Formats: sequence, structure tokens, C-alpha cells
Amino acid sequence: MQTICANSTNIGGAICVIRVSGDNAINITNRLFRSSKNKELSQMAGYSAHFGRIVESDESIVDEVIVIVYKAPHSYTGEDTTEIMCHASVYIVHRILELLMKQGCRIARPGEFTERAFMNRKMDLSQAEAVADLIAASNEATHRLAMSQMRGDFSHELKNLRNKLLEITSLLELEIDFSEEDIEFADRKQLIDLANNIHQVIQNLINTFRTGNAIKNGIPVAIIGHTNTGKSTLLNRLLHDDRAIVSDIHGTTRDTIEDTINIQGITFRFIDTAGIRESNDQIERIGIERSWQKAREAEIVLVLTDSTNIDLDLSTLSDKHIIKVFNKADIIDYSSFPFDSNSINISAKFGININRLEQMLIKASNIKKVEESNIVITNARHVEALQTALKAITKIEAQLSNGTTSDIIALDIYACIDALSDIVGDVTNEETLHSIFSRFCVGK
Amino acid sequence: MQTICANSTNIGGAICVIRVSGDNAINITNRLFRSSKNKELSQMAGYSAHFGRIVESDESIVDEVIVIVYKAPHSYTGEDTTEIMCHASVYIVHRILELLMKQGCRIARPGEFTERAFMNRKMDLSQAEAVADLIAASNEATHRLAMSQMRGDFSHELKNLRNKLLEITSLLELEIDFSEEDIEFADRKQLIDLANNIHQVIQNLINTFRTGNAIKNGIPVAIIGHTNTGKSTLLNRLLHDDRAIVSDIHGTTRDTIEDTINIQGITFRFIDTAGIRESNDQIERIGIERSWQKAREAEIVLVLTDSTNIDLDLSTLSDKHIIKVFNKADIIDYSSFPFDSNSINISAKFGININRLEQMLIKASNIKKVEESNIVITNARHVEALQTALKAITKIEAQLSNGTTSDIIALDIYACIDALSDIVGDVTNEETLHSIFSRFCVGK
Repeated sequence: MQTICANSTNIGGAICVIRVSGDNAINITNRLFRSSKNKELSQMAGYSAHFGRIVESDESIVDEVIVIVYKAPHSYTGEDTTEIMCHASVYIVHRILELLMKQGCRIARPGEFTERAFMNRKMDLSQAEAVADLIAASNEATHRLAMSQMRGDFSHELKNLRNKLLEITSLLELEIDFSEEDIEFADRKQLIDLANNIHQVIQNLINTFRTGNAIKNGIPVAIIGHTNTGKSTLLNRLLHDDRAIVSDIHGTTRDTIEDTINIQGITFRFIDTAGIRESNDQIERIGIERSWQKAREAEIVLVLTDSTNIDLDLSTLSDKHIIKVFNKADIIDYSSFPFDSNSINISAKFGININRLEQMLIKASNIKKVEESNIVITNARHVEALQTALKAITKIEAQLSNGTTSDIIALDIYACIDALSDIVGDVTNEETLHSIFSRFCVGK
Repeated sequence: MQTICANSTNIGGAICVIRVSGDNAINITNRLFRSSKNKELSQMAGYSAHFGRIVESDESIVDEVIVIVYKAPHSYTGEDTTEIMCHASVYIVHRILELLMKQGCRIARPGEFTERAFMNRKMDLSQAEAVADLIAASNEATHRLAMSQMRGDFSHELKNLRNKLLEITSLLELEIDFSEEDIEFADRKQLIDLANNIHQVIQNLINTFRTGNAIKNGIPVAIIGHTNTGKSTLLNRLLHDDRAIVSDIHGTTRDTIEDTINIQGITFRFIDTAGIRESNDQIERIGIERSWQKAREAEIVLVLTDSTNIDLDLSTLSDKHIIKVFNKADIIDYSSFPFDSNSINISAKFGININRLEQMLIKASNIKKVEESNIVITNARHVEALQTALKAITKIEAQLSNGTTSDIIALDIYACIDALSDIVGDVTNEETLHSIFSRFCVGK
């Protein structure tokens, strides 16, 4: 493979790491490298580090560096690799990359080192995707999900599923072998049980996505209520920021405003909405309709009021976790009001009871239960593939029950395995599957 | 020394490097590190890299990492050191630092790794300062100066100077030994020559600062001229940016606007100034006075006009490199005007002749000559120390000529060496000097 190079770090700290990977990585780096002991990097062991200088063609010094040598297949990409640790100067980093290019390197495309790791079977596709998630993880929950996926927990579960599907094919093959003797439907009860089990596992995985997505992108919390009840003030309070414009004028907020914040390790995505009231203003009315839509899309809805009475029709939000928030407790006397576990009086302006509201949000997020489970789908591509697999297994279940012949069923098993293989990018397995299914001809 | 840790990279790329340095660096890292081969990092050789995981106290995985082990004194700081290369996630980096702190590490102060390198005599003070300059270097010229300083060229020159000063003390000591025999002034001619030579070298070093500073912070180029001649348009054109507000209204620019840009490897700092005219506006008049001041502080002054006549009094700028720029060539006919090497017609608005103006700036910067010389002072602290040394050597020259006794002169030699030693932070040399000067008592 052509040797590629890139700065793997962000310029701005004290040091940067330039990664070089490919057949000539070590030789190319060696041509630019001078050490006091005249080391030849190609003679050095893998996983060894070397102090020296990177030099221009006239031997003038670009930088003093540490070079780490990795030998294929024992590297991140599985190829010969060097990592050049240099000073974090824009000039130095660019110059070293230029010198590497002069020696025949090409600047790596985004993700290309991980792509090569995938191509060289250092990781499967879902693990490779988890690397990006891992880097983006900003809290413990997202980190744990990404780490679990990168470590291969999800891949392992998919492998189990595929093995079960292959088990079905083996049993179907038996049917074919004995088809002359007409015992075709003998063991279908066992096959149906197996298919039902696969169906259930896939369905459970799909079900985790809603929460997985909430963990990854933040649990959507819509704040709705009449105009001037303090929605934007509450948003700013929850975000510890002046995110939304606040004024005493009714209808100040027209666009919905979103921002995320981490509360005790859980990311919430708060959505401030336009206040709800009868309005003749065209733009404001669009904003109000959007408020309801945002509420319907949210997991949790904070209904804000500044009276003891909420006169909004919440019937379209029956499947949401609704928290009724009675604001302006600094000027309104709520003492005789019967609060329950889903209602609270606060003052957004003065920060009264905000901690308790945050606790209610944590509880409503229901995230703890999810963290204990191992596999949570966070990737839309994976859900799509799982849904394709679910359709196939549903069809297989029906076919097993209604007496469809083995060779027809086999095609859908193929489709199901294919969908699951897509997730891990297991393209060569397709060939294996082809060989498995070669005994099933289309005609029969 | 207490073990310190810090993220040495900027979070944002693919990987980060956490540096750990101090007596327990390797042991502490080892407590958090798990490898498939159960490696004990303390048993590993210096300059070796190891793949494994950083784990929580419950053994759950924080990240898969590469750890590089360095053993004292063969590390950047001269102490036992590890470098943990992890995924560039905010969560991971913070968590690893937290775990290191739990094990007794302290977060390093800014520059503390380099400070320790200095304390452990891996580099002197001027070299340590050059590390910061090296990282900040954004072009070849600043990079070259910083690299030369980091490599110790300046330190070497200072050592030469100090050796020459010590040579004077040796010769003065001879005088003392023979003072009974009244040959005190025998060899003063040789001493004076030596002092003159030192004086010259120090003066030359100081002289490089103006250029060194210009290279480091950009060569200051003031743009002055009457109102509405297009100064802000020219600034924007030279910066390839909409940095200054441009309008047809006379006196649009009141504050001076500065920004730097790199032209062919040389950094220029362009300063747009308020247009010069008679004005009753108090604020504008302050701005106009500031325009002249900026011109006096600049190295190069672009005097902008939109007529064939420059009626500004430039007499206070006689020591500046002045380039007369006749703007609006798109609407004014300059064809009969006698341009020379320091005048040009351009159109800032349409970008006419801007390349030629840039060439004139490069030439005026006179930077090429400097790059060939080895040592250029870029640090204000160094200039200050050199000026102290210059004062001392000037005094010594006078004393050598006017017959001051050796013991008095010795005190000034001490002061001169001290000033030069300050630059490299050579505090222990002070003790050496004390022992040298112990033969000179105050009374004698």
C-alpha cells in the first residue's frame, strides 16, 4: 500500500505526533532522520523509540524528535508505521509533512489509518466506527458505549446471531439431504424456536437505539409553555449560560433554541420553544406550531407555567415524560399547591430548586438501567441494517411455519446474515456464505 | 521530585499524549496499565513502547494506549518519564489525568517539564526559552532563529564571552600577585584590547534585537496618508481579508488596526492608521496624533496618496524606510509620474501592482542578510541582560585605562559575567565565580 502520513494531533499543545503508515513508512522516515548513533530505523525493533533530528535535504535541522517504530502487522494499521513526535509548531509540522511527501508519502484521507486497520483485519467495521465515537465521547456514558463497541462486544453479539443463522442453514441442509425421503418438515419446530430467538435478540438491539441515540446526542428535553412564563430564563439557567435572549416582552423567542449540557454524566439536549398563545403574527404562529412539534419529538417535556393552573392541552404528549414546572416561585405563592414526583416549583430567575429539577431530569432520563446492559446501538447505520435483518427473520419465521421449501428459506437466511455482516463490514464472509449456499440452487 | 503529569497535546486530533515525569512516573503509570503480556513497565528498557490498556480501579477500560518509557537521565526532563498515547477524547484525557492524580501525580504547571529539563541541566535557560519560541514559530525565519537558539548557538557565544572575561580576571590576578613589585599596569594594553573585543561582540548582539524582534513579532509597517486615500482598503488587500471597515466617508478609521501576514516567509505587521487631515473632532485628532506615533514606531512606512503630490511633512520619519504609494491607479493617470525604487502606483481596490508592492516590502525588510548570520536576539530579557553587560564592560574599559586597581575592576567583571550568566540561568557558575573572586577582598 502507498505510504500515507498525517498529523494525528491538533496543533496547539507542546508536541504533535505525525503518523506515517505503509510499505515504505520506516524507510521514508529513516531518510529524514539523523541520530547521534547513526541508527538505521529499519534495523530497529518494533515498539522502539528513538531520539534524533528530522533534517532538510541540506542537513539543516527541522526539529529534534522522538520516532517510534512499529513493524507490520503489530501496529494500529497493521502496516509498517512510524510516529514522529515533534514540537507542536505549525511550521515544523507542515515542513515535516512536506518532506515526507517529497519522499513519496501521500497525505492520508480522514479516517484512512483506521480504514487500513479495517482492511488489514485489525478491527471490523463497527469497531472502526466506534473509534470515531470514542474520540467524540465527552462523558462517561458515551465513552462506555463507544469503548464497549470498539472492544468488540457488539461484533461478538452479531457473530452469535450469524452462527445461529448458520445453524438454521445446517438444519435446512439436512432437510435437503433427506428431501427424497419426505421428512422435510420434521424438525421445523426447533428451527422456529431458533428463529424466534434470533428475532427477539435483533428486536432488543433495535430497541436500545432510542436510548443509545439519546445518550450519544443528548436526551431531548423540550421546554414549552405560554409566552413570558420564563422558558428562556430556565434554559439559560439549566445551561449555566446566556444562550437565549431574555426579555419581558411576550413572544421574545421565535426560533427554537437548542443546546446540550452534561448533568451528572448524562447529556441533555434542552430545546427552548416559542411561547404558546393566540397570535396573529404569521412568523410567531409558525414558531408555536414548531414548539408542539419539538415537544412531540422530545423524550422529556418541561411544561412551564407562572400560575397554579396549566391550561395547555397536553393530550398529544401522552407518551412523553412530562414534568410540570411552576416558575416564578419568588413572586408566586405555591405553598398550598399539591406537588408530586412530576411537578415542582422553581424560580428560574433566582435559581431556586434548579438542583431538584435536575434530579427529576436524571430520574426521568432512565439512563442508569441502560448503562448496566452491555450493548446499546448508537449508530443509525447499524439500526438500518438490524431492521433489514429483522424483516428477513420475520419472513423466515413465516416461511418455516407455512411450509416453504428449504431452498427458498435459505435465500432469506442469506439476506439476514448479509444484513448483519454489513454492520461489521464482513465482506469476505460473503464469499464464505456463497460457498455455504452453493448447494442451494435457484431452480430448486 | 514529585511526579507531574499533563496533556502535552491539544485535544482535537486523533490522539493525545499525556506526559508523566518524576521519581514515580513509571511506577504510577504501571499501576494503571495492563498489557496482554502482564508487562511491568519498571522492568522495561528506556525508549521502549508498549501497547495495553489504562484501567479504572475496578479494572474497567478507560482506553487502549501506547505507553513509552524513558529512564532518567535519558528523557526530555532528565527524570523517569512516561508518555501515554491515548485517543483524543476529552473524557479519556481528563479521566487518565484524574487516575494519575489519584496515584499521587500533580498536574504540571505551564512549562514545568521544560523547567525540570533546565533544573536537571538538560538545557540552559536561553535554550529552554527557545523551546517556547520554536513552538510559536509560524514561518521559516522565526523557526530558524528559535532552532539555532535551542541548539545552543547563542549559549555557546555567551560561553565564549564569559571565558574571555575570565581571561581578564586571570591577567588581573597576575597583577595582584606581582603588586608588591609595582608592575601593576604592565599588561593593561592587552586587557583593554580584550575588553574592546567583548564590548564589540555584546554590542553586535544587541544590534540584532531590532531585527530579531521584527522577525519574531512581524516587521511593523505603518500605512499613513490623508483621509479617504484608501489606507483601509490597502490593509485589507495586503491581509487578503476584510479586517478594516471601508467606506467612502472621510475619517472612517479612528482606531489603529493591526494584523500580521506572512509574505514569502517574512512576517509583516501592518498598521492601518487614522487618515490625516485638519479636524475639529477631538477623538479623530487623537487618532491622527496616534497615526504619526505609529509611523515613528514602524520600520517601514507606506505613505498613501490619491494624487500625484504628497503634501505631508515626513521630516520626523527620516530614519524610516518610506515607500510612497500612489493609489487609485484605476481612476488616476500616473503615466507621466517618475516612479523610482521607493514609489509605486497601485489600485488597492482592484489589486493592481500589489505583488510589486509586496516585493518592495520584502526588499525593504532587509531580512535576507540577517538569516545568514547565526545569532539573532529575539528575547527582550536577553537584550536587557546584554545591556547590563554592556554597561559593565564599558565601565571596565574606562577603569583599565584610568588605572583603577585590579580588585575594583574585578567587581565589574563579576557584574558583567553575572549579567551574561543570567541569560543562560547559570546560577551554579555564580559559586564558581565567587571562588575565583575570593582572592579579591573588599578591603584591598
